[in-house]
Amino acid sequence: MSDAGSPAGKLYVIGLGPGPASWLTPEASEALAAVTDLVGYFSYVERVAPREGVTIHGSDNRVEIDRARHALELAEAGRVVGVVSGGDPGVFAMAAAVLEALESGPEAWRGIDIEILPGVSAMQAAAARIGAPLGGDFCAVSLSDNLKPWSIIARRLEAASVGDFVVALYNPASRARPRQIHDAFALLRKLRPHSTPVAFARAVGRPDERIVLTTLGEADPGLADMSTLVIVGATTTRLIARPGRNPFVLTPRSYGAGR
Amino acid sequence: MSDAGSPAGKLYVIGLGPGPASWLTPEASEALAAVTDLVGYFSYVERVAPREGVTIHGSDNRVEIDRARHALELAEAGRVVGVVSGGDPGVFAMAAAVLEALESGPEAWRGIDIEILPGVSAMQAAAARIGAPLGGDFCAVSLSDNLKPWSIIARRLEAASVGDFVVALYNPASRARPRQIHDAFALLRKLRPHSTPVAFARAVGRPDERIVLTTLGEADPGLADMSTLVIVGATTTRLIARPGRNPFVLTPRSYGAGR
Repeated sequence: MSDAGSPAGKLYVIGLGPGPASWLTPEASEALAAVTDLVGYFSYVERVAPREGVTIHGSDNRVEIDRARHALELAEAGRVVGVVSGGDPGVFAMAAAVLEALESGPEAWRGIDIEILPGVSAMQAAAARIGAPLGGDFCAVSLSDNLKPWSIIARRLEAASVGDFVVALYNPASRARPRQIHDAFALLRKLRPHSTPVAFARAVGRPDERIVLTTLGEADPGLADMSTLVIVGATTTRLIARPGRNPFVLTPRSYGAGR
Repeated sequence: MSDAGSPAGKLYVIGLGPGPASWLTPEASEALAAVTDLVGYFSYVERVAPREGVTIHGSDNRVEIDRARHALELAEAGRVVGVVSGGDPGVFAMAAAVLEALESGPEAWRGIDIEILPGVSAMQAAAARIGAPLGGDFCAVSLSDNLKPWSIIARRLEAASVGDFVVALYNPASRARPRQIHDAFALLRKLRPHSTPVAFARAVGRPDERIVLTTLGEADPGLADMSTLVIVGATTTRLIARPGRNPFVLTPRSYGAGR
């Protein structure tokens, strides 16, 4: 900040990864060790080891933009603020919320030193556990219609199927939004072969991790909850059987001209 | 492996992240400390600090499947093998190559203990540097036509534009393939507004990092090389000006119904 009278606040948007410390980058660890204030949804803030001198601003408020504004206010006041986010903050998480708050906020906020620290995303963790489902071209689509109408989501699922992309479905369902994943599967079953491999990857890397491999035709969309990432294969996606282990899911890099 | 007579080989597919050690996960570091053999493209193997007792199988062979087969042979022979990959091995990298080799290889390979360790991808590192360009729904498309015909790439760029996805372009160009990024931009200019924000993010996190922010209409596709990740915005993607700093690129989470 160029104003010599203003304190040098800082805002880190920190990706915590999907859960375990083994997926937390050293960069994120260093930032967590430097902050004076931690802002985030309770379940993310709770993952960070408490440290003397750090003020915790945990929130059960689902309105991310409010948390983002609060974090910017703290940084403007000279605090070193960490906004914590599960997975990668750039993928359906706090980076966009912070920048939306910045865009609509007071001009002075534009001078705040903001650094976004990437993390392993839920999509990548899920993919690593089941093989190489994202080995070809892929899309990520959030099914939450809190922020966009269902018509946009439907258009994107259709376009992703025309392009024969592997699709990772974020925010497939919540208690307040149980329907979207059912509607999405109903639509995808009209667009893709029912034999398409599908994975429900819940809480990957956490004690309650659960992976279900199935097909588009046989999948029970009710398996998906807030902590689930759903991967729907392309026409090239297939299983590799292994004795005594779960099969691997593979989307090969190559794409035959014969389709 | 259940055969009591066979040695307990292991194969890790290790994501090194985009470059700096600050983006290497603790899980990946632990695996690098456990391997007896390292297999990979020279520029990736060279990133790993040498350690006594580790056999390096560096290669300038661009045929990834050959490296994958070699790694599986070593693991079958009882070695603890690390296949190293830049970024995330699941995103246009070695995880798919290893599983393709597994699928087409001898039955005995199916018993090998294979673990894939995710990493920060180039796409996420680039996004974090420039703001939150992936804040909405997005696609990742490899422009390499070594493994798929251009018609498939074109169909995917068209579908991604119909769906108004942000698009991350991997492998935009190489000395052997200078044309694809020019053809991709020519196509995208027919499909998206010329004012669409575009970022060329080269070697993010490495000493020769270079970021160029421009628009689809004004972009020079010749800026892209092997080390460049190109991000092309959706219709909602925009810039946030900041005094004395580069603007942030934001794709907001919300999508107005007015389109």
